[in-house]
Amino acid sequence: MSAPERNLTAVRHGIDAEMRRARFGHRGGVVWFTGLSGSGKSTLATALEVRLFEAGMHPVLLDGDNLRHGLNADLGFSPEDREENIRRAGAVAALFAEAGMIVIASFISPYAADRAQARAATKDPFLEVHLDVDVSVCQTRDPKGLYAKAIRGEIPEFTGVSAPYEAPETPELRLDTNALGIEACVDRLEALVRERLTSAA
Amino acid sequence: MSAPERNLTAVRHGIDAEMRRARFGHRGGVVWFTGLSGSGKSTLATALEVRLFEAGMHPVLLDGDNLRHGLNADLGFSPEDREENIRRAGAVAALFAEAGMIVIASFISPYAADRAQARAATKDPFLEVHLDVDVSVCQTRDPKGLYAKAIRGEIPEFTGVSAPYEAPETPELRLDTNALGIEACVDRLEALVRERLTSAA
Repeated sequence: MSAPERNLTAVRHGIDAEMRRARFGHRGGVVWFTGLSGSGKSTLATALEVRLFEAGMHPVLLDGDNLRHGLNADLGFSPEDREENIRRAGAVAALFAEAGMIVIASFISPYAADRAQARAATKDPFLEVHLDVDVSVCQTRDPKGLYAKAIRGEIPEFTGVSAPYEAPETPELRLDTNALGIEACVDRLEALVRERLTSAA
Repeated sequence: MSAPERNLTAVRHGIDAEMRRARFGHRGGVVWFTGLSGSGKSTLATALEVRLFEAGMHPVLLDGDNLRHGLNADLGFSPEDREENIRRAGAVAALFAEAGMIVIASFISPYAADRAQARAATKDPFLEVHLDVDVSVCQTRDPKGLYAKAIRGEIPEFTGVSAPYEAPETPELRLDTNALGIEACVDRLEALVRERLTSAA
């Protein structure tokens, strides 16, 4: 969708990306986690946030559950609302990246088209990370008891049970959180962030 | 509107407000500019952003025009869409404040109810700043030529011409940008920010 262009003038901002980069020691960007419920998104996102912060960087975490309490509180779980949920998440991630921060966005985001839209929303690096865990493992973990509900038919259109998950074909990183430990996953994520968002690899 | 609560669990974030405050040297908060078109919002917002950044703080600017190119690109200028524009702006401002940043939000935001909703959206300090300039002065300035269009009837429901502006009754700060120079206004804004968002006044 394009903005209604009439009567809008671009505001020149006083602080540009280069000034923020010099202050923060890294450029802004988006690390976008995609994967099934139970694939480890929340755990890894939190662990990465702590790792980057302790390394002196400026991370911020955006996730579906928390956005849904505020910005997306008007959205339900219909296909249209799920798409809008991801569209807004991508737009907000772009704003944070523009402000120089490293966004850790954690959303199931099962549709390739929605993830492509989130990627297109930002001018900053967009690092798609697929938490690639077999659905059978996720069902065994089932930390929130959602698969059990979905299999009983109590949650309609549940990704991996009654709705599809479109795996990324060329993500910037693919992590099997079943084979690798948390620390090893975070190591790889930190290396990716340093390679793409800082001058020092 | 309340979130659909089912199947949502709060994610514990690894980095809390106190850790961010210690890093940034100030807590997060929202400086919300409200005032007519031509009251000086964009000019002051940019000047304040530069002032705070140069003082070592971490400001970010959110304004109507720029949000409308991304997050709010689906919204037009109907009364409902204007309300939703401000609702989302308030929600995004809250996310930035939660991330420890000082949001400078610059929106005409003519309705008291919408501003109250933005205030309620954040747990961090919300500093409402009314750029209180008589509409006759704004019409004389008319930096974007909008009043001329509105008076010719080419823009419907234009605040101050054909739509009301509800002035805040108890803003945290009221500035007459016609009587005060830019630097004097920014001095007062910086003092307010230091008083409310930093320990050192």
